[in-house]
Amino acid sequence: MSISEKEAERALTEQVVASFAATPDERLRMLMQSLVRHLHAFVREVEPTEAEWMAAIRFLTETGKMCDDVVRQEFILLSDTLGVSMLVDAINHRYATGATDTTVFGPFYMRGMPERAYGENIALSPGAPALVHGRVLSTDGMPIEGAVLDVWQTAENGMYSGQDTAQPHGNLRGRFRTDAEGRYAITTIVPVSYPIPTDGPVGRMLDATGRHPWRPAHLHFMIDAPQHRKLVTHLFDEADPYLTSDAVFGVKPSLMVAYRERTADHELARRFGFDGPFCEARYDFVLDRN
Amino acid sequence: MSISEKEAERALTEQVVASFAATPDERLRMLMQSLVRHLHAFVREVEPTEAEWMAAIRFLTETGKMCDDVVRQEFILLSDTLGVSMLVDAINHRYATGATDTTVFGPFYMRGMPERAYGENIALSPGAPALVHGRVLSTDGMPIEGAVLDVWQTAENGMYSGQDTAQPHGNLRGRFRTDAEGRYAITTIVPVSYPIPTDGPVGRMLDATGRHPWRPAHLHFMIDAPQHRKLVTHLFDEADPYLTSDAVFGVKPSLMVAYRERTADHELARRFGFDGPFCEARYDFVLDRN
Ligand SMILES: [Fe+2]
Ligand SMILES: [Fe+2]
Repeated sequence: MSISEKEAERALTEQVVASFAATPDERLRMLMQSLVRHLHAFVREVEPTEAEWMAAIRFLTETGKMCDDVVRQEFILLSDTLGVSMLVDAINHRYATGATDTTVFGPFYMRGMPERAYGENIALSPGAPALVHGRVLSTDGMPIEGAVLDVWQTAENGMYSGQDTAQPHGNLRGRFRTDAEGRYAITTIVPVSYPIPTDGPVGRMLDATGRHPWRPAHLHFMIDAPQHRKLVTHLFDEADPYLTSDAVFGVKPSLMVAYRERTADHELARRFGFDGPFCEARYDFVLDRN
Repeated sequence: MSISEKEAERALTEQVVASFAATPDERLRMLMQSLVRHLHAFVREVEPTEAEWMAAIRFLTETGKMCDDVVRQEFILLSDTLGVSMLVDAINHRYATGATDTTVFGPFYMRGMPERAYGENIALSPGAPALVHGRVLSTDGMPIEGAVLDVWQTAENGMYSGQDTAQPHGNLRGRFRTDAEGRYAITTIVPVSYPIPTDGPVGRMLDATGRHPWRPAHLHFMIDAPQHRKLVTHLFDEADPYLTSDAVFGVKPSLMVAYRERTADHELARRFGFDGPFCEARYDFVLDRN
């Protein structure tokens, strides 16, 4: 490439950056100008052919078309599988305060799920019975009363209700409220590893790059309490084989929990109404004050 | 930010890059790993809030949903308005050979338009009558016989047929074939400046950043000839006020043409059947040999 060609390409980037100079909102101006510089740097580094550029346009278009308004968000999935979601998460949760670690939100949350009583069963489909319980505390160690734990997990077939329309409405979803001692208890099933949806552009990307689509078994939590910072996280089964190769890079050592086998004569069985063997997982969440 | 947090964020990027290490296709591996590095560098530089990240997800989703299979391609429009299309174009047309400069393809091409005779009129809607003519040559100066010039331009309302479904099918579109001397001639209307579509996410982006959506008046050409490299370009009206601020950065000095006013007694009027004043633009295209 000649010097003048190189200069012309640089000048193009500067021309595009300059076109955003009059953006009224300073933050937006900074975002757009940085985006242009990094995007152009990427294009300059890889030197895409026109066919590759067109393939990228098609990929992004199909990713948008794959999204619905309910439960499928292919762009979140793309962000997740490129590690961008976890990077944004890390950037927004710097400066450790003793609060529980965060992880990806994922694309399968549904708002407005039913309120559940202490210990109530959310599993309307089969699986290994489990009790997940513990407390929600403030960083000063005080229990938080009235914290709302929005939980969601897949059925044994690896799919979320809503995503899998054959499941009963609200299956394996619900909102639990802590009592005066900050306690919560959820009767559910032991979560299973599951593949992220592979029938869209993200699945094709994973397949073409030799990556597997599996996520280690986990239970999703979004925890909201007055005067505290909202916590979005997972509890991972510490025995899962995919912990070191999560398709969305969401695992943190602090978010692992053991599912301990209990028999029907365990005192928790009587308290929570298990009439056979079950697994118990205990975890205390810690929330930052606002 | 603590050193360990910084290290954790760097480690995340390296983990994502490593996840693509087993990509069977080497080119795809390089593309994905470079994409991850540049995308993460952008995220690290701007440190988006979670709300900003979600706004970006929504923006991309709406951009995908705005695309149809006919004539609206919002991701091409996004690539155009961020200067990416012109950068890809520049990268793919380095090493000047004497051939005509290229510019953006744009999202409004339609394949399969009717073949037109030498000098045939493609305007089925009103406008200032124009004759656009010249020759198609090879870089050695020899005329090319049988080159096909696929042309398209907007109507006076600034919209392309197909985009504007009220226009007759094939309005201001057509395929012309050069004669033995490499000559082509198109009867049409003088092109007008027009805004790119502003009713989608790209329009909102331009509005929010204080950019205008206008493109200087132009006629699109895609020229194909045996043994030659396909040429995708525009001819711009050299009198247009938007030449220095094209919304898609497509203008090159070599692609400007004058529309000269001619009267009904000009010899070209008789030859091409103009019965009143018209404008004449002359341009010779030069194609690279394969
Ligand atoms: Fe999940
Ligand atoms: Fe155009």
